[in-house]
Amino acid sequence: MSGADRIAQLERIMDLLGFPKSAGMHLVAAEPGKVTMALAKRLDLTQFFGHFHGGVVAGLADHAAGACATSSMPDGKLAVTIEIKVNFLAPADGEEIIARAETIQAGSTIVVVKVEVASKKAGAERTCAFAIATMRAMDMPAGFL
Amino acid sequence: MSGADRIAQLERIMDLLGFPKSAGMHLVAAEPGKVTMALAKRLDLTQFFGHFHGGVVAGLADHAAGACATSSMPDGKLAVTIEIKVNFLAPADGEEIIARAETIQAGSTIVVVKVEVASKKAGAERTCAFAIATMRAMDMPAGFL
Amino acid sequence: MSGADRIAQLERIMDLLGFPKSAGMHLVAAEPGKVTMALAKRLDLTQFFGHFHGGVVAGLADHAAGACATSSMPDGKLAVTIEIKVNFLAPADGEEIIARAETIQAGSTIVVVKVEVASKKAGAERTCAFAIATMRAMDMPAGFL
Amino acid sequence: MSGADRIAQLERIMDLLGFPKSAGMHLVAAEPGKVTMALAKRLDLTQFFGHFHGGVVAGLADHAAGACATSSMPDGKLAVTIEIKVNFLAPADGEEIIARAETIQAGSTIVVVKVEVASKKAGAERTCAFAIATMRAMDMPAGFL
Repeated sequence: MSGADRIAQLERIMDLLGFPKSAGMHLVAAEPGKVTMALAKRLDLTQFFGHFHGGVVAGLADHAAGACATSSMPDGKLAVTIEIKVNFLAPADGEEIIARAETIQAGSTIVVVKVEVASKKAGAERTCAFAIATMRAMDMPAGFL
Repeated sequence: MSGADRIAQLERIMDLLGFPKSAGMHLVAAEPGKVTMALAKRLDLTQFFGHFHGGVVAGLADHAAGACATSSMPDGKLAVTIEIKVNFLAPADGEEIIARAETIQAGSTIVVVKVEVASKKAGAERTCAFAIATMRAMDMPAGFL
Repeated sequence: MSGADRIAQLERIMDLLGFPKSAGMHLVAAEPGKVTMALAKRLDLTQFFGHFHGGVVAGLADHAAGACATSSMPDGKLAVTIEIKVNFLAPADGEEIIARAETIQAGSTIVVVKVEVASKKAGAERTCAFAIATMRAMDMPAGFL
Repeated sequence: MSGADRIAQLERIMDLLGFPKSAGMHLVAAEPGKVTMALAKRLDLTQFFGHFHGGVVAGLADHAAGACATSSMPDGKLAVTIEIKVNFLAPADGEEIIARAETIQAGSTIVVVKVEVASKKAGAERTCAFAIATMRAMDMPAGFL
């Protein structure tokens, strides 16, 4: 599959029903081994101070990591998360968060991805979280997409 | 503040607007250093196979960890997450997930919490995730509750 | 291979040259899915306050996790660490540290192990670290033991 | 304290007795927020295949992270590790390992550091591990150095 086809496939995966679509996560840019996703603030995504909830920040990081790891795997494989660790570095107090995922190691079954999440407020970005995810390749189910 | 008051306070925090309430997270049981929360499945909380999304599992774990850490801190303190690590052990394919958080170390400013998340399906539970969270005490803002 | 043979094999692995043997790590107890190892204090294992160095604590936790994961795998497989996370909960200021590893999930290729490390001082134990390790099964090289 | 004084202080800390000095860890370069340390291979630092042991890799990463975090803290503060997570990306099969630590967030009490560890073999480097450490500032004991 070409790189462009792969990206189109990631977009179709993004567009499936469920948490990422309901929350409003969307693909901003993608190439093999690098994926950027963003999410606009909504009241139902916040914590008690009105910032993005940590679980939502982790969810966007996880989703970007999964798409990024999938983009580093052979055709027909899909990444599932073995584990993810997120350090929260600053309040996610912007009107949008942007997760930039990058593959740092791609083995035959295990792919490791780092993700920087920025909070965008009045046009300025600040890193608000840093994540490392270990992903495992599974066979994409027949007829999945 | 008495233990019962503390739990009532946690319930008020849970009931604030935002992601936890919108998703439907609710307190099942709580005592100082131990908190159980649950979340029923809804389509907007799932990933592509129809299981709970990893970000939602992480979000429930984080929220339970935060309440648990807060319950281990002195009155007037609120826990915020420094970092959380989640291992996904099995698909969260039940109709409900239950997070059981327990404080494993309570220092003056840092509290460490472990969380086991079970997926409940047709009445049977299976551990689907294990998390460790490092939380920091911050002053509860005046008039917060 | 019987459980007893498996333990004998772990002991032979422990006895190979290298860091674990040089440091003095030794097996205290083992059964499939549970391994306990200990290490006595020596000046060359300490940090600046005279406690066990964090790297040594992590090293013992990692080694116990590896043996534990290997004990949860089929014959002929050896565990290698994909990632380990260690929370340091109290100074490792005893004369001995003891790592108790337990498998919390054993899949076909991935095994997840938790490890509690206690510091023993004047006969009393205190938990000083908590670790989670994700291990991968590799084929044991021919003639390895 | 000037930057140069700070580096000299780090070198004195490095030179204290204990695991880092005994193992042979040494400072290669340092500036506020960036520290590089290296360690040459010795039989007593290896695992069963003759590569650097995971605990030793973690130990060097932890030590570099500690020095780096200390360099990002005010005078009179010393970094101690709250938690460290290490992903092992490739065998540490070189004759030397080099840890490059960089502060990614410096708060008033918490400093977060990332560390890339390279394995150097026949002059060529390959990343063999990636670590994230969360460090806490403690007061440097009087007369410590």
